[in-house]
Amino acid sequence: MTDTLQSLIDPKAKLGRRVQIGHGARIYGSAHIGDDCQLGDHCIIGHPAGGRWSNQPVVLGSGATIRSHSVIYEGSEFGPKLETGHHVLIREGTIAGPNLRVGSFSDLEGDCTIGDFCRFHSYTHVGRGSRIGHFVWLYSLTTLTNDPLPPSDLVAAVVLEDGVVVCVGATLMPGTILRRGAYVSAQSTVSGEVPAGAVVSGPQGRIVSHVSFVMNLEHGIRHPWMGHFSSHYPEEAQPRLRQLREAILAGRDEFVRRHLHKEGAS
Amino acid sequence: MTDTLQSLIDPKAKLGRRVQIGHGARIYGSAHIGDDCQLGDHCIIGHPAGGRWSNQPVVLGSGATIRSHSVIYEGSEFGPKLETGHHVLIREGTIAGPNLRVGSFSDLEGDCTIGDFCRFHSYTHVGRGSRIGHFVWLYSLTTLTNDPLPPSDLVAAVVLEDGVVVCVGATLMPGTILRRGAYVSAQSTVSGEVPAGAVVSGPQGRIVSHVSFVMNLEHGIRHPWMGHFSSHYPEEAQPRLRQLREAILAGRDEFVRRHLHKEGAS
Amino acid sequence: MTDTLQSLIDPKAKLGRRVQIGHGARIYGSAHIGDDCQLGDHCIIGHPAGGRWSNQPVVLGSGATIRSHSVIYEGSEFGPKLETGHHVLIREGTIAGPNLRVGSFSDLEGDCTIGDFCRFHSYTHVGRGSRIGHFVWLYSLTTLTNDPLPPSDLVAAVVLEDGVVVCVGATLMPGTILRRGAYVSAQSTVSGEVPAGAVVSGPQGRIVSHVSFVMNLEHGIRHPWMGHFSSHYPEEAQPRLRQLREAILAGRDEFVRRHLHKEGAS
Repeated sequence: MTDTLQSLIDPKAKLGRRVQIGHGARIYGSAHIGDDCQLGDHCIIGHPAGGRWSNQPVVLGSGATIRSHSVIYEGSEFGPKLETGHHVLIREGTIAGPNLRVGSFSDLEGDCTIGDFCRFHSYTHVGRGSRIGHFVWLYSLTTLTNDPLPPSDLVAAVVLEDGVVVCVGATLMPGTILRRGAYVSAQSTVSGEVPAGAVVSGPQGRIVSHVSFVMNLEHGIRHPWMGHFSSHYPEEAQPRLRQLREAILAGRDEFVRRHLHKEGAS
Repeated sequence: MTDTLQSLIDPKAKLGRRVQIGHGARIYGSAHIGDDCQLGDHCIIGHPAGGRWSNQPVVLGSGATIRSHSVIYEGSEFGPKLETGHHVLIREGTIAGPNLRVGSFSDLEGDCTIGDFCRFHSYTHVGRGSRIGHFVWLYSLTTLTNDPLPPSDLVAAVVLEDGVVVCVGATLMPGTILRRGAYVSAQSTVSGEVPAGAVVSGPQGRIVSHVSFVMNLEHGIRHPWMGHFSSHYPEEAQPRLRQLREAILAGRDEFVRRHLHKEGAS
Repeated sequence: MTDTLQSLIDPKAKLGRRVQIGHGARIYGSAHIGDDCQLGDHCIIGHPAGGRWSNQPVVLGSGATIRSHSVIYEGSEFGPKLETGHHVLIREGTIAGPNLRVGSFSDLEGDCTIGDFCRFHSYTHVGRGSRIGHFVWLYSLTTLTNDPLPPSDLVAAVVLEDGVVVCVGATLMPGTILRRGAYVSAQSTVSGEVPAGAVVSGPQGRIVSHVSFVMNLEHGIRHPWMGHFSSHYPEEAQPRLRQLREAILAGRDEFVRRHLHKEGAS
């Protein structure tokens, strides 16, 4: 037994000021770690990647918190205040904006873009090539697929625009496009293009409502969520959240005419 | 390469007799480890928590087996003979009775109570605030949610009473209450209050039967499971298992009248 | 902080030539590691098992790549070129052919046989006792169960024959038998025996088509997948892939008569 930290840090790694590195951690030479980052026990930063990402840097912006047993590959870049749970895997070619949070046991397969202030809960699986906007929520056990004819060499990545919410256990089939503020109910399976602000539900991902009609009767709170949940974001995000909410609401009347009042719609 | 164990143990940690600590393990000062515990390689006991659980002890009763790469936060308490699989995460504020077993890759999010002799399989996700009784089974990939309007600040935790079984892949929506001995079929989604002994099934979690009608024809074995599976529990649990089974059976006739013989029920 | 590898290797372990062992890895005495294997950081090879597998060797064929934080128990045997993702768990009694690939966070519960060239993606859960043929694909979050009356002492393991594909999120209920080349759509739940070449779909796992009718219109590519995806396998696998494809196609006409043209079939 020892009473000192046992970590393994490549001397070529670039470490900012006040970086804390946990017991058993391994930092490869490709790592560029910003100021005030905390790297948990047994995590690996800069894991070697193949192909065009080989020997490319992995950049963690300042103030990142990487919890224990997480693995981040080289060839990626994260804005400030990245936060991961435990046992998270992020593969090469991931480009993410500030304050991404990734829940425990999540698997980001790389070659993807992720906007600002995104929130992923545990066991989220983001398939290679996904394109994710700003302020997106992925709840536990959501899966973004990418192969339209498994197994094949075809790729049809998923696209999620700003403010999208994907609830627990939902599966986004290859090529799914969720437009701004779309809302996927728990356990749904979705494919194709979903219009802005739509609520989709069920095994065929049918449009059932507009997100502004989703509410909690008991507390009188209603979506879009930017109206009642914005205090969880920093000051600089507030104008963007307001604009996003207004844009989603501005499209409601047209959405209702097109998708809810047509014959046979529920 | 070394041939000795490299672990990191805070001198303030309280360790019982005959405690085995694995290679790469980290034990924080908040840890109170009972006699005869085995802590696997690369596990973390007493991980720092925030808020009111900060610097509160994590107590492992005697005879615990914590398998490798597991992480248990401070501010929790477990009865004797806790057993975890590999890569398990248990967050702060978890109060559990004796002989809890938690399968590999499970995520217990904390601030929850768990009764005696519970059995959770792999990838179970127990949302914050859940209240779980005695002798409860959670199978793989079951999820206990808690936010009724994601994302929001509302909390509607799940309540599971004694003897409940939740089969593989089921999702319990926010606020779900499963009364004593209720049985959730594989891949179901459940919400609301489910009466004692009910079997629920499908995407709307409809009541389809009473648990005492669930049987294996080939072997002539029928539920409630306490009738044919009690030998897997220690002697002191046997009277409680018998009482639990009798209580579930005692409610059957009334259940059938109310829920299965009414018009339109299947 | 250290600048050397810290691993823990039992002197009784048998290591081939050019074996690379990661930081924090633990190799037990039961390990027989072939030439040119790479064992990642914080992985455990030869974890002690109970029962009849206790102290039995775990044999890794040459050229294995075991990624970080993976745990492989004693009492198993793998052909050459085993490849695991990160955080993989493989329990005792697993007998697998060459070039098995197991995705990150997967849980192989042991006492199972796996044929040659199988491909499992992340979060796959293979229940104890499963029997898996050659060239089988399991996509993310697929589950092979085994208890027909949970909880009970009954076991009804799943059998998957050669060339089977199980798409993302599917659940195979206890005792499911998928005959050669059967294809399970995403999010399906399957039970019973599924004939060779069948496509099953939905919560009841109904037969909806023959795999040779599954195609991508845009690119004109159609299954069985061995026709367009065989270049991902080595030369020695090519004749077997051709024979497998021919056998699946040879059964098509009879399949269509029996399962698709009968009254009420879709």
